[in-house]
Amino acid sequence: MIESPELFLRTLFDAAVAAVSAERCLLPHLPPPPAGRTLVVGAGKAAAAMARVVEAHWQGPLSGLVVTRYGHSARSAQERPLRYTEVVEAGHPVPDRAGQIAATRILALATDLEAEDLLLCLLSGGGSALLSLPAPGLRLDDKQRLTKALLRSGATIAEINCVRKHLSAIKGGRLAVAAAPAQVVTLAISDVPGDDPVVIASGPTLPDPTTTADALAILHRYDLTETPPLAETPKPGTQAFLQARTTVIATAQEALEGAAAAARRAGVTPVILSNAVEGEAREVALVHAAIARQVAAHDQPFPPPCVLLSGGETTVTVRGNGRGGRNSEFLLALLLALDGHPRIHALACGTDGIDGTEDNAGAVAGPETLRRGRNPQAALDANNSYDFFLEAGGLVVTGPTQTNVSDFRAIFIGPG
Amino acid sequence: MIESPELFLRTLFDAAVAAVSAERCLLPHLPPPPAGRTLVVGAGKAAAAMARVVEAHWQGPLSGLVVTRYGHSARSAQERPLRYTEVVEAGHPVPDRAGQIAATRILALATDLEAEDLLLCLLSGGGSALLSLPAPGLRLDDKQRLTKALLRSGATIAEINCVRKHLSAIKGGRLAVAAAPAQVVTLAISDVPGDDPVVIASGPTLPDPTTTADALAILHRYDLTETPPLAETPKPGTQAFLQARTTVIATAQEALEGAAAAARRAGVTPVILSNAVEGEAREVALVHAAIARQVAAHDQPFPPPCVLLSGGETTVTVRGNGRGGRNSEFLLALLLALDGHPRIHALACGTDGIDGTEDNAGAVAGPETLRRGRNPQAALDANNSYDFFLEAGGLVVTGPTQTNVSDFRAIFIGPG
Repeated sequence: MIESPELFLRTLFDAAVAAVSAERCLLPHLPPPPAGRTLVVGAGKAAAAMARVVEAHWQGPLSGLVVTRYGHSARSAQERPLRYTEVVEAGHPVPDRAGQIAATRILALATDLEAEDLLLCLLSGGGSALLSLPAPGLRLDDKQRLTKALLRSGATIAEINCVRKHLSAIKGGRLAVAAAPAQVVTLAISDVPGDDPVVIASGPTLPDPTTTADALAILHRYDLTETPPLAETPKPGTQAFLQARTTVIATAQEALEGAAAAARRAGVTPVILSNAVEGEAREVALVHAAIARQVAAHDQPFPPPCVLLSGGETTVTVRGNGRGGRNSEFLLALLLALDGHPRIHALACGTDGIDGTEDNAGAVAGPETLRRGRNPQAALDANNSYDFFLEAGGLVVTGPTQTNVSDFRAIFIGPG
Repeated sequence: MIESPELFLRTLFDAAVAAVSAERCLLPHLPPPPAGRTLVVGAGKAAAAMARVVEAHWQGPLSGLVVTRYGHSARSAQERPLRYTEVVEAGHPVPDRAGQIAATRILALATDLEAEDLLLCLLSGGGSALLSLPAPGLRLDDKQRLTKALLRSGATIAEINCVRKHLSAIKGGRLAVAAAPAQVVTLAISDVPGDDPVVIASGPTLPDPTTTADALAILHRYDLTETPPLAETPKPGTQAFLQARTTVIATAQEALEGAAAAARRAGVTPVILSNAVEGEAREVALVHAAIARQVAAHDQPFPPPCVLLSGGETTVTVRGNGRGGRNSEFLLALLLALDGHPRIHALACGTDGIDGTEDNAGAVAGPETLRRGRNPQAALDANNSYDFFLEAGGLVVTGPTQTNVSDFRAIFIGPG
């Protein structure tokens, strides 16, 4: 018996995040120390937490530099500062000067490595924006403008990263090329649907299967008429990649399994629909709502009490001037579709703890939420889901979680 | 063991359609004959088939007039013509002069009824367009233009019908008001999500809970700047409705259950996701693809072999100049998202046998389909899914089925 569905859903979210934390996932994948030096580099929302685990368990000398998002260096003031690895904070999702300087330094440090050395590269979601070094002929502000346009276009994260790789001096395998002849070990927390390591943080240590022609086609598909100078990436077969290996240490699937285990402990059947849902947030919400209604009305595909779980990353085609990320927009559209259904509660949050540009991870809602807020349809039309939940209640605020396996959605259907 | 997944999916579609045919569903709901006359009226894609079942089993005198879509009077030349009920064919989804004349005659016949008489009203999907009589002050061509704009706007069928009711002299309960004081029995095959009889064929015999203000808000939401003269509908409590009763005799859920039973007989687990999926077809496809991939990769939410089933009605926001309905567009978007996944086959068809404006019910496809056709992404971008499947193969052509419970989708995931 679930006393508070909203608290239950919040517990599932915490379980999902815990299952993909650096503390839980990184240690089993640490490589043995090399004969020479070890350089830790990295980028992403989990970079500081990943470096902290490395420092806590590393045998031998260590130095390094990682880039994370502003505010993501520590989860609390109590967290021990890093001793050997410098943590730089930089801009995300639009790259900034701080990220560019850090990327320049990382590339220089990697270039200094020799054959007996090890480059330990710690990647996580957000790394694409944070590890940003414009290719020759491109200025940072050009890259910023193009990134903003891509983020607003409705392009998928794989498409955005394909373009980014061809605008960069460090992405798409170029970091591994710089580190040669050193050994390169990459540990990655995946925030991309399908968990292809080539896409995570735009694959700075992996050969890039995409081409400048692919990048151009994407710009064209989303009506981005600007044609920046695109640079071709190193391709599979390049010598540097023979010394490189990559392990994906945490995925959306593991977060969903973590939540599923927590649901089972509470006596609720977990139904994992997908770890890789893509699509326009408000449309994805309609399908989730339809499935939740089917559970409530017909005990299909499972009888309640059950909780539908999904991961992946939706997109929001920005039409209005409101505030709010894809998770709160998904949830608002879901509530409108459910129209106060008395037995359905739902949560949608980014596992990184930040939904878009505001301070919330997402939101949680129940049958009453819709009528506690003003004009929900207008809020959705204006992409103003943050303000809606601010007024109606339900914002989930965790602060940065220092991990990132993209979005987490849970829809609880109570017994009839 | 499924020898041919595409044939298997086609069998499921046939089972779904058979489960909601007039022959299967109508007889148990026939009312007893009245003391006076019985007038059969009706509108929709199933109108002729429904009238045929009534004639075959009716005790007592009978006369009538029903409207169906062009080509939907008979499934084959062998079908027995109706003896007592005139069948008129008219335009759909855009209403035409033939439908207007038929609606005028139906309204006049109903007005002639007396207290001991029975109006037996046979409704099914398509009835909204077919039973079209512009409200005073509105011309048919105004109504045609507005209907076309609504159909292309992305509005849901419930929203479109709300507007239609306020443009009509027969919808939204006005037929029942005309028939008073006769008894009114309505039998309806539902093509609307949620199966609310008020929405089916725009509810000509039921009081309308929506208002002209609701209709205006919908026109506004979809940027339709034209403001036609809207007429308020009869409201609940009106005397005429005390003598009226409505039964929904077939629904999308029953079609899905029919397909599920056929799947079970073939040893495949059926997974009914929803009988009422709404949303933009290509986005709905992304979510279906994500769930199918989860089945294939993680045995979740069910292990293969299984077949995901869903009903409801998607929308297509027309952007290109191509040919194709929402089912073939859904299927093309699904194929692109599945990218030739070797174990997944899918079918999407309208249960009425006509997907949009072409001659096909929909299409069926497998892992090879995508590369048998030219430039699938461009075809999707241009809303040209019909031509894609015409070239690649896979069009499902059944002709009119004489029933209609909206769309049917089946995605088969074979064993690993």
